Amino acid sequence: MLPRILLGPGPSLTPPSVQAAMALPPIGHMDVALLPVLDEIVTLLRETFQTANEVTFPISGTGTAGMEAAFANTLAPGTRVLVASCGYFAERMAEVARRLGAEVTLVDAPWGQMVDPADVERALRKTGAQVLGVVHVETSTGVCQPCREFAQMAHNHSAVILVDAVASLGGMEIPVDQWEIDLCYSGSQKCLSAPPGLAPLTLNSRVRTHATARTSPSFYLDIELLWQYWGPGHAYHHTAPVPLLYALQEALRLVHEEGLSARVARHQHHAAALWAGLEALGLRLFVPESLRASSLTTVHVPDRIDEARVRRRLLEEYGIEIAGGLGPLRGRIWRIGLMGYSSQIQHVILVLFALENILRSEGFSLDGGAAVRAASRILATAPVL
Amino acid sequence: MLPRILLGPGPSLTPPSVQAAMALPPIGHMDVALLPVLDEIVTLLRETFQTANEVTFPISGTGTAGMEAAFANTLAPGTRVLVASCGYFAERMAEVARRLGAEVTLVDAPWGQMVDPADVERALRKTGAQVLGVVHVETSTGVCQPCREFAQMAHNHSAVILVDAVASLGGMEIPVDQWEIDLCYSGSQKCLSAPPGLAPLTLNSRVRTHATARTSPSFYLDIELLWQYWGPGHAYHHTAPVPLLYALQEALRLVHEEGLSARVARHQHHAAALWAGLEALGLRLFVPESLRASSLTTVHVPDRIDEARVRRRLLEEYGIEIAGGLGPLRGRIWRIGLMGYSSQIQHVILVLFALENILRSEGFSLDGGAAVRAASRILATAPVL
Repeated sequence: MLPRILLGPGPSLTPPSVQAAMALPPIGHMDVALLPVLDEIVTLLRETFQTANEVTFPISGTGTAGMEAAFANTLAPGTRVLVASCGYFAERMAEVARRLGAEVTLVDAPWGQMVDPADVERALRKTGAQVLGVVHVETSTGVCQPCREFAQMAHNHSAVILVDAVASLGGMEIPVDQWEIDLCYSGSQKCLSAPPGLAPLTLNSRVRTHATARTSPSFYLDIELLWQYWGPGHAYHHTAPVPLLYALQEALRLVHEEGLSARVARHQHHAAALWAGLEALGLRLFVPESLRASSLTTVHVPDRIDEARVRRRLLEEYGIEIAGGLGPLRGRIWRIGLMGYSSQIQHVILVLFALENILRSEGFSLDGGAAVRAASRILATAPVL
Repeated sequence: MLPRILLGPGPSLTPPSVQAAMALPPIGHMDVALLPVLDEIVTLLRETFQTANEVTFPISGTGTAGMEAAFANTLAPGTRVLVASCGYFAERMAEVARRLGAEVTLVDAPWGQMVDPADVERALRKTGAQVLGVVHVETSTGVCQPCREFAQMAHNHSAVILVDAVASLGGMEIPVDQWEIDLCYSGSQKCLSAPPGLAPLTLNSRVRTHATARTSPSFYLDIELLWQYWGPGHAYHHTAPVPLLYALQEALRLVHEEGLSARVARHQHHAAALWAGLEALGLRLFVPESLRASSLTTVHVPDRIDEARVRRRLLEEYGIEIAGGLGPLRGRIWRIGLMGYSSQIQHVILVLFALENILRSEGFSLDGGAAVRAASRILATAPVL
């Protein structure tokens, strides 16, 4: 098996020092020597979320567990929830909230578009929603939504806003305090480039004391109990997955070392090169440029091309993982991620080179080398910091 | 910092090959090359649980997530649940079930004892409970409860039984099918000696189709949805924590290689040596011998000894982690685990040697070397297979 170059919608590649951290000798979850690790993770997560929120820590589960923790701690049965939906993970938000007993309304936009803020405003007024759920970067489409604007609207209607930053934290701007996001969660395995299994989460005192705040029906995901372990008290709640914590600590140190704005610029720079290359190949990008996430690029599968076969060849011949579409986009788009440690010049060049060769041999006519040349022109410039 | 010798109630030490597995190069959760790993984990878990149950896989969370998955998929609001409680984790069961809307009754026994089966029988009759929750080995006390007997009682009253085998699976007998346990869950980090973060779980068709079966209010812990990923369909549900899966796969291979009965005998043999040594030290074991778990030994803290100080010295001077008591047993007992890879001759000898030296220097009078000699006499014999 070829070593994998992970250019899908996550997990991304993990840096060698993060890999190494996972295999550190085991230590107990209540060991005094572990406590500084917990504290540093909290501090570095606050920096990454750009927040002064006290309650900031990783949930011991994947991004979906973060989503569930967000709703389980803010909804009571009957709470009116509005979800701004233009993709698979917003629909998952709705499903999670519904199972927890919320009355959920969706404000839809076509997949590949963002939800119209005017529609959200109208729906907030009409439904009297107490909670607004928004996905920042929709992993199913690569669309980035304007969370700051949505946050203002939510607050104008006395609602709290919960933001899914699974596919953006650590790679794109998501300044939680400046944008007045009440609760934000992410996943460890995308732009943070730690292994999957943790869901960083932060919430402000507004959402902790909001009318909809409740005792979580989930003991495992009870944020207030979890904070008793992660906060200064360090009281036992469950056996923390220590190897994943070591890895996250190292991954966050690397974010700190690089600097958030340099990291955001790197993601943007490499994404722009990928876009230029894909267009030079003759492919059509799925998302209008103004809405495109830099962490995840989506592109139409050309007519008469078997998309699954192209992905299989990328994996078998180059070790490159990209993803196909979810739900209604199945068979219609590819999803190419340049997240965290995967966002590197050589990956941009390699995936374009590989795609060009495979598409040509699959009968798609194109101008040899054009993609790599187009990307190179952008890569030759410095990223805008 | 001294390297840690983990002799607490979990996590246990992980074998080198399990450590190494965690740092394998990352791979996507939907990669065709990962699917055989998923399938092998399912097969090896069935072997370890001694079950032919189809639905058998690890939850992406710790043992507490396993507990929550067990109840979330078997309770509806108002379901009558009986918990046979003689410790902290049974009380957690009750708390988890209550939060999910169940009507919970506890049948109590003092911590350090097992629950009287006659009391359980009476309570089943009286409450008409539909679900019986039992902790096999209570991590707070080291008591092992007779799950086979409880299973028969539950079935005689048309209830299903959910068994917590967090502190026993892979180290003590828990033959799920033979004992007719309907649902059983465990944790990765105790007798299986994988890192914490996964909760192996199995359930039979009886519990899947029982009157109390329901759609889980938790999307993350919905067993039927999770089985769509773990079962032959391998459909996406959430991003599986692949490094933990690699580690669990290797840990389960080691269980298979050693053989379950040899492993059970090893745990029993080393525990017996520890018990003899502790008694030779002049310490009183907390649990009557007939109820003692071999994975976890509890012992009274002698009068005038500062228990936290002894633990701190064990950690600082020898790198040995043991635990104190939980809840009402705080300050009153020590908990010494010999679980999985931690259940080794040299650990028995070392912890006795260290305890003897520290207790003597703390002013506890004892017969020098007696503990190690007593343990050695047992260790010199072969374990009974």
